[in-house]
Amino acid sequence: MDRDRFAAISCSVARTAGLIGDPWTLLVLRDMFLGLSRYEDLHRNLGVATNVLADRLGRLVASGLATRRAYQARPVRHEYLLTPAGRDLYGIVLAMLAWGDRHLAPDGPPMTLVHATCGHPTTPAVTCNHCGGGLAPDTVSTCPGPGGSAGPGTTLIGALLGGNR
Amino acid sequence: MDRDRFAAISCSVARTAGLIGDPWTLLVLRDMFLGLSRYEDLHRNLGVATNVLADRLGRLVASGLATRRAYQARPVRHEYLLTPAGRDLYGIVLAMLAWGDRHLAPDGPPMTLVHATCGHPTTPAVTCNHCGGGLAPDTVSTCPGPGGSAGPGTTLIGALLGGNR
Repeated sequence: MDRDRFAAISCSVARTAGLIGDPWTLLVLRDMFLGLSRYEDLHRNLGVATNVLADRLGRLVASGLATRRAYQARPVRHEYLLTPAGRDLYGIVLAMLAWGDRHLAPDGPPMTLVHATCGHPTTPAVTCNHCGGGLAPDTVSTCPGPGGSAGPGTTLIGALLGGNR
Repeated sequence: MDRDRFAAISCSVARTAGLIGDPWTLLVLRDMFLGLSRYEDLHRNLGVATNVLADRLGRLVASGLATRRAYQARPVRHEYLLTPAGRDLYGIVLAMLAWGDRHLAPDGPPMTLVHATCGHPTTPAVTCNHCGGGLAPDTVSTCPGPGGSAGPGTTLIGALLGGNR
């Protein structure tokens, strides 16, 4: 199965992509970050087929990114809550939002963000945790890490890592 | 078709996810950021079926994220280069890398990064472009933007936006 295939690649991008590299999964995460949790609300908001939604929610639970609990007994109704690992996906969703606002929003951003901590409108940026500067392909060099190994998905790239480009 | 469906949602996460919310697409982008460009190299590195790779590359070109050019005439061989919009996806890939390193790398990061600008090892962080602080679900509030509208994919969330939570 494809998910196992991506999990087996010695690459954190591949493993993450295997879990959340799916539009509906990303929209479910977006909705959870906006405060939706009940199956019925997710279904109404997304307008997605029930089998697709149930599949994506089941995968989030199986991956440890969300938990399911009943909030009503008769009839039983479930809500889904992000785990700490699931909440930690927020930055990825924000980075996608910011890119879409820059490239796919001809009428302006559908939604704007305010950083409550500083009180200002914010555009999420992906930055260096050491100096705070922006990260671009030509300002980042890559090195082999302790968890790396060559194999399908990383057959050639090991040779590309190491030193400055 | 699903891609059109996500493009029609008034949401920058949905539109971005419709273009790159796919594991193989994300791995092709990763490889391009690492310096691979030739079809044959991408194919060897990923170990992916040729029809899948050709489909993903064709979509990247059709979406304006990459361009294709022949680098050899007999036999004809193609390479794929990211456009400025494609290169701007780097932050998304880095955010996925960082999350995977935190949650899916029991043996340590498969690859480490050095920020050449400051000279230090770096962990990509998603931060506020105003104050530089981290962004978390409980420190960001959402407001309706000029490009927003209610419809499938955003049926309920309009009512959740606005003011601090």
